[in-house]
Amino acid sequence: MSTHSHGPLDHLIRQLSSLPGLGNRSARRIALHLLQKRDTAMRPLAGALEQAAEQVCECSICGNLDMSAPCKICTDERRDRTKLCVVAQVSDVWAIERTGAYKGLYHVLGGVLSALDGIGPDELRIHSLIERVHDAGELEIILGLSATVDGQSTAHYISDKLMDSNAQLNITRLAHGMPVGGDLDYLDEGTITTALKSRRSAA
Amino acid sequence: MSTHSHGPLDHLIRQLSSLPGLGNRSARRIALHLLQKRDTAMRPLAGALEQAAEQVCECSICGNLDMSAPCKICTDERRDRTKLCVVAQVSDVWAIERTGAYKGLYHVLGGVLSALDGIGPDELRIHSLIERVHDAGELEIILGLSATVDGQSTAHYISDKLMDSNAQLNITRLAHGMPVGGDLDYLDEGTITTALKSRRSAA
Repeated sequence: MSTHSHGPLDHLIRQLSSLPGLGNRSARRIALHLLQKRDTAMRPLAGALEQAAEQVCECSICGNLDMSAPCKICTDERRDRTKLCVVAQVSDVWAIERTGAYKGLYHVLGGVLSALDGIGPDELRIHSLIERVHDAGELEIILGLSATVDGQSTAHYISDKLMDSNAQLNITRLAHGMPVGGDLDYLDEGTITTALKSRRSAA
Repeated sequence: MSTHSHGPLDHLIRQLSSLPGLGNRSARRIALHLLQKRDTAMRPLAGALEQAAEQVCECSICGNLDMSAPCKICTDERRDRTKLCVVAQVSDVWAIERTGAYKGLYHVLGGVLSALDGIGPDELRIHSLIERVHDAGELEIILGLSATVDGQSTAHYISDKLMDSNAQLNITRLAHGMPVGGDLDYLDEGTITTALKSRRSAA
């Protein structure tokens, strides 16, 4: 599209190719698809974008995205208020909610600490987490952060800060081990080592 | 997102995941990215979609997408009207235009014949191609179709139809061979065989 400019088409392709995971080629493919299905795909997508931009907001308590602030989870009386799961991203909240296995509350940090990307504590929702647990009394904090270097150093940092703020906290983290359905042969050595060390009685 | 419905957010993710090449996971990632950059990414994308849906139209002659019908290429007096390149998709026009090596006209079929996908001659812009060349006198038709089974059977079909319609046509096809910069070791046998058979003097 370089030598031959199409105005709005070029503009659309540029907008699409700036989305995460999309390059120039996939942006062109999507733009063509949309233009061929203008009334069934293109205008509905534009409408969905406008509507979401208008109606979806960030929860003032936990940082989740929802149509109201505070969000449905924070205001749900049936949720267990003695458990608070700290995650990096809103997508992690969704992933845990899909399991249906957790009924507590969340706190979305908005990322993890990363020296490389210049993300320090002030870029994340850490101060509000500390404030949130300060007077909470007994509370389990579940650190639901990724098993990456950045994820785990963020977990350590938060853990220290939280213990300073409220000594009654019970801080836990997600178990490491074999993914369910995972083939031992395909697992990395770190995971196998962790799974061995954390082995449990099979009874 | 199954058990926990967010209304407009769910709707946006569904719309995004129906785009070619995007699954649920990438749609969620893009939706989050957009919601975090509402004014710099989300609204501009919605606007670009609306604008393109409004302004981009299909050329009545060649099937290319442009802001006017007939398109810039069809109406450009400097283009060589003795050459007509037949391609499957608008993206193929863009790919050839990017080279700057072709100054003739185009005809976009809108796909290739495919028994599997139920695409016959009536689903493609073949009738209008035949009408277009019927009274054209001497004309070179360059079949710029993919070197796939469907692409090549479409080329054969069109070639037969065109010869019936206008015996003065000179029908050519793109050369097959090694991609420029291609490593011989990584090429499939079909390509190497073709490149060997079509070998040319190195002088």
